[in-house]
Amino acid sequence: MNAPLPNEVLPAYDRRPVPDVMLAALRERFGDRCSTVAAVREQHGRDESPFPVTPPDAVVFCESTDEVAFVVTQAAAHGVPVIPFGVGSSLEGHLLAVQGGVSVDLSRMTRIVRVNPEDLTVTVEAGVTREQLNREVRDQGLFFPIDPGANASLGGMAATRASGTNAVRYGTMRENVLGLTVVTASGEIIHTGTRARKSSAGYDLTRLFVGSEGTLGVMTEVTLKLYPLPEAVSAAICQFTDIAAAVNATIQIIQMGVPIARCELLDANAVRAVNAQSKLGLKERPMLLMEFHGSDAGVKEQAETVQAITAEFGGADFEWASTPEERTRLWTARHKAYFAGMAMNPGCRTVTTDTCVPISRLAEIIEASVADADASGLPYYIVGHVGDGNFHLAYLVKDGDADERATAERLSMEMVQRAIAMEGTCTGEHGIGLHKMGFLVDEAGAGSIALMREIKRALDPKNIMNPGKIFVL
Amino acid sequence: MNAPLPNEVLPAYDRRPVPDVMLAALRERFGDRCSTVAAVREQHGRDESPFPVTPPDAVVFCESTDEVAFVVTQAAAHGVPVIPFGVGSSLEGHLLAVQGGVSVDLSRMTRIVRVNPEDLTVTVEAGVTREQLNREVRDQGLFFPIDPGANASLGGMAATRASGTNAVRYGTMRENVLGLTVVTASGEIIHTGTRARKSSAGYDLTRLFVGSEGTLGVMTEVTLKLYPLPEAVSAAICQFTDIAAAVNATIQIIQMGVPIARCELLDANAVRAVNAQSKLGLKERPMLLMEFHGSDAGVKEQAETVQAITAEFGGADFEWASTPEERTRLWTARHKAYFAGMAMNPGCRTVTTDTCVPISRLAEIIEASVADADASGLPYYIVGHVGDGNFHLAYLVKDGDADERATAERLSMEMVQRAIAMEGTCTGEHGIGLHKMGFLVDEAGAGSIALMREIKRALDPKNIMNPGKIFVL
Repeated sequence: MNAPLPNEVLPAYDRRPVPDVMLAALRERFGDRCSTVAAVREQHGRDESPFPVTPPDAVVFCESTDEVAFVVTQAAAHGVPVIPFGVGSSLEGHLLAVQGGVSVDLSRMTRIVRVNPEDLTVTVEAGVTREQLNREVRDQGLFFPIDPGANASLGGMAATRASGTNAVRYGTMRENVLGLTVVTASGEIIHTGTRARKSSAGYDLTRLFVGSEGTLGVMTEVTLKLYPLPEAVSAAICQFTDIAAAVNATIQIIQMGVPIARCELLDANAVRAVNAQSKLGLKERPMLLMEFHGSDAGVKEQAETVQAITAEFGGADFEWASTPEERTRLWTARHKAYFAGMAMNPGCRTVTTDTCVPISRLAEIIEASVADADASGLPYYIVGHVGDGNFHLAYLVKDGDADERATAERLSMEMVQRAIAMEGTCTGEHGIGLHKMGFLVDEAGAGSIALMREIKRALDPKNIMNPGKIFVL
Repeated sequence: MNAPLPNEVLPAYDRRPVPDVMLAALRERFGDRCSTVAAVREQHGRDESPFPVTPPDAVVFCESTDEVAFVVTQAAAHGVPVIPFGVGSSLEGHLLAVQGGVSVDLSRMTRIVRVNPEDLTVTVEAGVTREQLNREVRDQGLFFPIDPGANASLGGMAATRASGTNAVRYGTMRENVLGLTVVTASGEIIHTGTRARKSSAGYDLTRLFVGSEGTLGVMTEVTLKLYPLPEAVSAAICQFTDIAAAVNATIQIIQMGVPIARCELLDANAVRAVNAQSKLGLKERPMLLMEFHGSDAGVKEQAETVQAITAEFGGADFEWASTPEERTRLWTARHKAYFAGMAMNPGCRTVTTDTCVPISRLAEIIEASVADADASGLPYYIVGHVGDGNFHLAYLVKDGDADERATAERLSMEMVQRAIAMEGTCTGEHGIGLHKMGFLVDEAGAGSIALMREIKRALDPKNIMNPGKIFVL
């Protein structure tokens, strides 16, 4: 088993700084949208991971695909790394400039290029966030379901193959991206996919770029599927005496084919944290937070089925939230779990896991991981997209405490070992970044990694696109 | 616009025959499972396309992944083409041995490796057909929905990114393959994906192989999603005065978010043909053939919504088929449309199109294509997976009549031009094969094709995996 990259040590990559002649060309084209100010560089040299800040040499705020192509063409000419940047919410060190280079900030590329309500498609620039998109299409009776919690950019979400709470019903970015505009490593602009719902036309370049974490090109526009806003939405919570009961109820819900839209687990620690943060007054016991989408009758039927199943597994305190306000309160609390966990443990940082297993193994892996976490004495909590078999066990470690950090990393590694042995994955939705490169080797095997490397070398022969991430070339 | 490859002329590829030393090695390992008998070779040198038979030099009937790896290792050593063969139901010349070489027949690899009913997953050998799979999992209350009509092998369906009548609800092979065992071009065995429902672990090799038409490796095992058999299924037909009305009703059904499981269009010509073949006694008018899956109440609700929508668009003769026998009769008739069309036109062959467009443009492209077809005087019929925007216009041309063939190819090309201008695709589910290589260049653009070529060169440097298909290297 390959250990994860210790969070406090960066790999010893050679730096490839931006030469003066390139910086001059960028300044000439972009004026003060090309910045080398320390504060700006530092802001672009971090994400939500616990890695130390590792700034790029320069940041360029691009406003169009052509501008991105200009930067990449320059970078290709000078062999300089290019790191695409959305809102900085990635979790595994994706954005750190481990070899220096240019951060291409796409946060000003926020145009909704085109909504096609009849076709249930939309094309957006990569810097559009999911909340902006949903605001802009709501009036047309449409929504985009993928919800990773953070108000991430859609380019960033495509880059990490993000998913989140709605994936159990609507799929992940893998299923919901129809096409892309990409600036390739040579600075060329290409388009992948079409607006048709399906296609058998050649290699699936769209799916190759989705999840490639910026290592094969810069996605500048994303064409997405939209969905009609459901006629009825309702949410419910249900509490359980133990996690296994909650998970087993979930398995049954999925096996029955209930088209549940969200099915989230919070362990007692997570409930305690969100209670404290959001004053929810919930019993501090494991719970499922669920959402149902459909027609009035359909939602009612789903809910009845689910209520019967949860009762079978000892679920109690089944409680409805049918008004939008109640639902928002619950989901906001869920989305704040990460910050709530830190607020409960001042001076701590979070080491988050992201394993995903076949659902039949979910109770088993959570129970084993909980036993280990309890034995370690580290504070922790669990939130999980359990309908997909995906959960996050978050360890809270004292900032700068190397022993605690090492304990958390050891527990995380053991959990990943278990997940892989169960035919699961080391990362359901956060990506590999810097942190999980060792895990990826264990999961994918040498043969698959070799293929990934060949693809990387073929499409980015100078290794300038977010180098040093996913695998070491 | 690049013309399609004329069906009666093969590209002038250099042949790369199997050398005697390799043939000896294959005979030693496989005995009489390695055949050079003319009839066997001919059977492996054709598919359902109108291309002339183009046999391989040898056929090897493999029974395991290791055996496939042995063949590919030999082929790699001698620079000989390898063409994976399932049941031979592909439509675009995928299986033709345009450079000679070895056909790797996977039809004896029919083991269901493992069903995991709790996880709704199954792993099968590539030669398992969809009907075999469904027979074997039905007792466990499960089914695999992808249904391209032909009883294709699951390896072949993965290779062409197949879909068919159920895709509007359940997606295509793209959405339903979780992982693969692949023999790469060097003869190495790799595994892609996991049994987890989602993953962000590195490049999406699974999706790269799905739809690669055998040009990147031989898929020998496929892990698929399964679905619980719906509690209730019902089918209905509804007839319309014109195609546009049927299509517009479909658009409305999709926009309303009705989770319809199948939504098929048959034009009056197709109805005439299936009437004659299957004695259905339908009025010879355009019709929708629909299927609904869900709970009893859910199916009823869907059907009521759909009946109201179709009535709005002048749909009449709405007729239910709730018993399995009635449903089977209707769907069997639909699946036989291809043969029914030929039976109506003795001495003819079929030139089938496969465009797929954003659904808002579907009525427009069908109407324009119908006008052209009517003007041409060629017999034709239309069947369509209209819920996805995908339809097949099949021209019946007299076998050996070069003028009729040319007319059909011209009409097909004009339709593809329209589809691409509407941001659609030249192929929704049949693949590129030999026939649509020109179309692919128009659709994907030079930049994307260049990337596909780079990937092919990186993963198959000797160009031995089904060479000459998708694009010319």
